[in-house]
Amino acid sequence: MDLRMDRAALAAFLARDFGQVAADFAVERADAAGVALRLVASERHLRPGGTVSGPAMFALADVAMYLAILSRIGPVALAVTTNCSIDFLRKPPAGHDLLAEARILKLGRSLAVGDVLVFAEGVADPVARAGLTYSIPPGR
Amino acid sequence: MDLRMDRAALAAFLARDFGQVAADFAVERADAAGVALRLVASERHLRPGGTVSGPAMFALADVAMYLAILSRIGPVALAVTTNCSIDFLRKPPAGHDLLAEARILKLGRSLAVGDVLVFAEGVADPVARAGLTYSIPPGR
Amino acid sequence: MDLRMDRAALAAFLARDFGQVAADFAVERADAAGVALRLVASERHLRPGGTVSGPAMFALADVAMYLAILSRIGPVALAVTTNCSIDFLRKPPAGHDLLAEARILKLGRSLAVGDVLVFAEGVADPVARAGLTYSIPPGR
Amino acid sequence: MDLRMDRAALAAFLARDFGQVAADFAVERADAAGVALRLVASERHLRPGGTVSGPAMFALADVAMYLAILSRIGPVALAVTTNCSIDFLRKPPAGHDLLAEARILKLGRSLAVGDVLVFAEGVADPVARAGLTYSIPPGR
Repeated sequence: MDLRMDRAALAAFLARDFGQVAADFAVERADAAGVALRLVASERHLRPGGTVSGPAMFALADVAMYLAILSRIGPVALAVTTNCSIDFLRKPPAGHDLLAEARILKLGRSLAVGDVLVFAEGVADPVARAGLTYSIPPGR
Repeated sequence: MDLRMDRAALAAFLARDFGQVAADFAVERADAAGVALRLVASERHLRPGGTVSGPAMFALADVAMYLAILSRIGPVALAVTTNCSIDFLRKPPAGHDLLAEARILKLGRSLAVGDVLVFAEGVADPVARAGLTYSIPPGR
Repeated sequence: MDLRMDRAALAAFLARDFGQVAADFAVERADAAGVALRLVASERHLRPGGTVSGPAMFALADVAMYLAILSRIGPVALAVTTNCSIDFLRKPPAGHDLLAEARILKLGRSLAVGDVLVFAEGVADPVARAGLTYSIPPGR
Repeated sequence: MDLRMDRAALAAFLARDFGQVAADFAVERADAAGVALRLVASERHLRPGGTVSGPAMFALADVAMYLAILSRIGPVALAVTTNCSIDFLRKPPAGHDLLAEARILKLGRSLAVGDVLVFAEGVADPVARAGLTYSIPPGR
């Protein structure tokens, strides 16, 4: 399995094409096993009590899977999420960054499927789990 | 079927307990059929091209279901989303507000399940569909 | 919206191409709103206590959506399920047939998405709800 | 982490309480990592072409998760599936048994959540992936 984009290439892509949200995320790792992505939590990701909100965890899982796909197929900006099923397992503890581990389970011509575990940094049990499907435009 | 909270009560609850995001949403309707919620789209909900982002649609569906549950059980701030499966059907057209229609399919002692259709205002075909499960704390 | 296959055409398709399971199902209705399919429950669909099993409800939802797609695109035997998210809401009462109501939410060139409600005949509250995605082969 | 039921105890439970389907499944492994379950495919699990059907894969994933939960909490016959989101990744090759690997991600007082990968024996890429939620009766 080739890696078409490494950690640095993914970070540059994120900064260029997703300027609005790029500052929220840091690419921690990209390799044959998948992509690890950090949510740099700021005030607007938090609920009262200081825990990261559901939509912010959804966004983290979604971007992590997107980058895992790009790491394998190259910079295809038009891949779109078609389905996400996410389980919220535990309330994330306040004051911890969240880390998503995304892996690809299928990379077909038109669909890519993978799953993501989301962890609070330094805590063993995951806070969320998601399965995602992306549609990949033809002719890539 | 009783309605424990009507449109005005849900709007007041949202403003008081979810101050951070309350300005993003407007409760359009609350009745026996469910709750209709509007996303008042602002710059930070948009992707390049002016369409509403996936996480913003997820947040809209999640809040709509939450309010639909509260309309039936009263202001239980501790109900939490345990699962959401969302299908993104079409790219929302730019310049339209999004409207979510949430309905309850099961309201048990500890779990509530429902589904949500998300529409771009004035467009017949839905842009997203979600099924959500909420866990309700005991002793309500 | 055209209907390419009506109730009788769907029933004939089921009998011819799905002989093994065709006897389990009866097409009740096919129109612009979607397809209604009955599970003719037999011993092997039941759990102890006489309620229909989860896999049998899954099969019912899956076949109902498949037929709803065929009613719109014609007899494309190669359409395949790519995702199903199903919520089991209540234990089905013993001694009632199950009826699935499937509707199409998106019918694209390569993906079709819809949802299904499953009812015990004569009971108002649904026993299950499913969202399904089918992949449609190119060149239909 | 304790294991309340080992491979032999799970197999005995399956034979006693699920007589109707027990012959379809063989418990391959039960340990701290989860449970591996084999589908002993017979004619009624197959589609034309000899591949295992979607409902049979669903049943395999569902039973594997159920046994993984029981291995941790003991023989609680009343745990019920509340949600399953399953992705069908590839058509299973004909003539291979299927193996499910189930792991628990959360074991709470009232809900258990886990995921399952399904493989065709001897083939590296998974044929299906599922996330499942079980409701556990109080007072266990």
